[in-house]
Amino acid sequence: MMPPLELLDFLRKEDGFLITTHINPDGDGLGSAIALSMSLQGFGKKTVLLCKDPVPHQYRFLPGHEGFHTFDNVKDFENIILVDCNDIDRITTDKSQISNLKFQISAVIDHHESERPFGDIRWVMPDSAATGLMIYHLIKELGIKITEDMAVNLYAAIAVDTGNFRYENTTSGVLRAASDLIEAGAKPHVIYRWLFEAWSEGRFDLFMRVLNTLEREDGTAIVKVTRRMFEETSTSPDDTEHFVEFPRIMKDVQVSVLFREIDDTHYKISLRSKDDINVARIAEAFGGGGHKNAAGCRIKADFETAKKEILTQVKRFYMSDTA
Amino acid sequence: MMPPLELLDFLRKEDGFLITTHINPDGDGLGSAIALSMSLQGFGKKTVLLCKDPVPHQYRFLPGHEGFHTFDNVKDFENIILVDCNDIDRITTDKSQISNLKFQISAVIDHHESERPFGDIRWVMPDSAATGLMIYHLIKELGIKITEDMAVNLYAAIAVDTGNFRYENTTSGVLRAASDLIEAGAKPHVIYRWLFEAWSEGRFDLFMRVLNTLEREDGTAIVKVTRRMFEETSTSPDDTEHFVEFPRIMKDVQVSVLFREIDDTHYKISLRSKDDINVARIAEAFGGGGHKNAAGCRIKADFETAKKEILTQVKRFYMSDTA
Repeated sequence: MMPPLELLDFLRKEDGFLITTHINPDGDGLGSAIALSMSLQGFGKKTVLLCKDPVPHQYRFLPGHEGFHTFDNVKDFENIILVDCNDIDRITTDKSQISNLKFQISAVIDHHESERPFGDIRWVMPDSAATGLMIYHLIKELGIKITEDMAVNLYAAIAVDTGNFRYENTTSGVLRAASDLIEAGAKPHVIYRWLFEAWSEGRFDLFMRVLNTLEREDGTAIVKVTRRMFEETSTSPDDTEHFVEFPRIMKDVQVSVLFREIDDTHYKISLRSKDDINVARIAEAFGGGGHKNAAGCRIKADFETAKKEILTQVKRFYMSDTA
Repeated sequence: MMPPLELLDFLRKEDGFLITTHINPDGDGLGSAIALSMSLQGFGKKTVLLCKDPVPHQYRFLPGHEGFHTFDNVKDFENIILVDCNDIDRITTDKSQISNLKFQISAVIDHHESERPFGDIRWVMPDSAATGLMIYHLIKELGIKITEDMAVNLYAAIAVDTGNFRYENTTSGVLRAASDLIEAGAKPHVIYRWLFEAWSEGRFDLFMRVLNTLEREDGTAIVKVTRRMFEETSTSPDDTEHFVEFPRIMKDVQVSVLFREIDDTHYKISLRSKDDINVARIAEAFGGGGHKNAAGCRIKADFETAKKEILTQVKRFYMSDTA
């Protein structure tokens, strides 16, 4: 995985970089931005980290996470680098913040599909498991030694986006990079604990309440989370992250669906599937979207009606997908 | 990780090998034995796989798993190799089967601590994350090409014993080997699904019932499984594998305990801990044993009494461990 020469030249020649990632930042965006910033600083460059939102609690173990600035503290900058994000409109929801941001050259380093051609210099690799993997190769190519702090950030970035090496994007190159990062000081079990085993008691209680609503119909598992559950467990919608994936632990579950109650007649729906069942097509039937195995949509109806509609679509597409 | 020359000579010079593993075989023992057998066959040797117990259902995806023989079908053999096991008494519970087994030379390849010096040739490496990792290095050292079937067996062996690369034993060498095995044809997400996402509906129901019994006291989580739960979900004690680990997902849970009801006044207890809390010392207080973070024991008392006794010991050792 070779970064474009144009990007390497840009990083070598320029002196000051504003490095930012998308709103609602995740471990890949944060770890990638921090590691890139550290490596450029080690190279004698001036960098500033920018993020619209505060670093979520589960990522506050990342060395350097306290270095992020908000838009209020950031002045004009010569150059901007978007990391794990390929559109300037995704770095904030406040358009005035974007129009106030002045920069000369923009660069994009990302592994998401790109919808608009933002960026003077673009390195977009949808085949890369994580942006952290691209940053790892970039740092190596720049000839910078990977410190322990960089290694923790990059390992975490890769672990988040590969589900700790269990998703289909776990290639030999992913494990080779992760192996190198361990050599540089990343501790897999410590990072795993921070990323995947730092639930609050309230979140655990919520998880149990949600799973206790489980209904199964053929190969589809349905669970529900209500406003009352959040109240009773002092939790928020963020705490439901990954819940929808859990019922897939059952061999015979092909599609897993989480209904989140917005109000009595409005549900936000997350869908997950195995193998070739394309839940994006199901979500699209309700005006939503996503990827083959992970998608989402909204339905304005009471729970029983919404559930029935989803099951009808699942059956329709499942039948055609597996015919 | 270099296999002893004596072992390499033995494998190169001899022609027939009986390869076996421990009773209640796990993915590391089975995958290691199968991969070793395949590699020696590729080398022109005659091998026979032997296992006292049938291959558990979750490992029946391993290519070559159907090749295991039981003791009834196995005749005298020149050489025997114990894999993921270092004591001949652990290959069967039936002593007459051992005394009927005739062989000339015995070899041991294992990563468990050894209590007795069984084996003419011994390669025992407690620092290795998995026996599968040792077999990987052995096959490489013998100069044999790793086929896709061997790679799947070895990757599965390593994934099982590292908790899919989340335990403390996940070293850079582990990931480097796993990376090589992907190159040779192992598919991480497919193997993950077989190993960790192939629960029956009954097992899921049992899991929910068990977690619904959760009690927390300070940093200790306690769950219970009863005979009635097994009946109601058509499951068996094997189905509780990994259940005790789950409550550790909570940040503030340091010790997790599963009580399995044998009868009203007899419980089998599994203990798991984080970091430096040594649950083996707690288990030993009741005549059990194990490792620092995973141990077990039995208590002959009703549930409330047994629970109280365990909590008393947890407090005692937790206080001294963290003092």
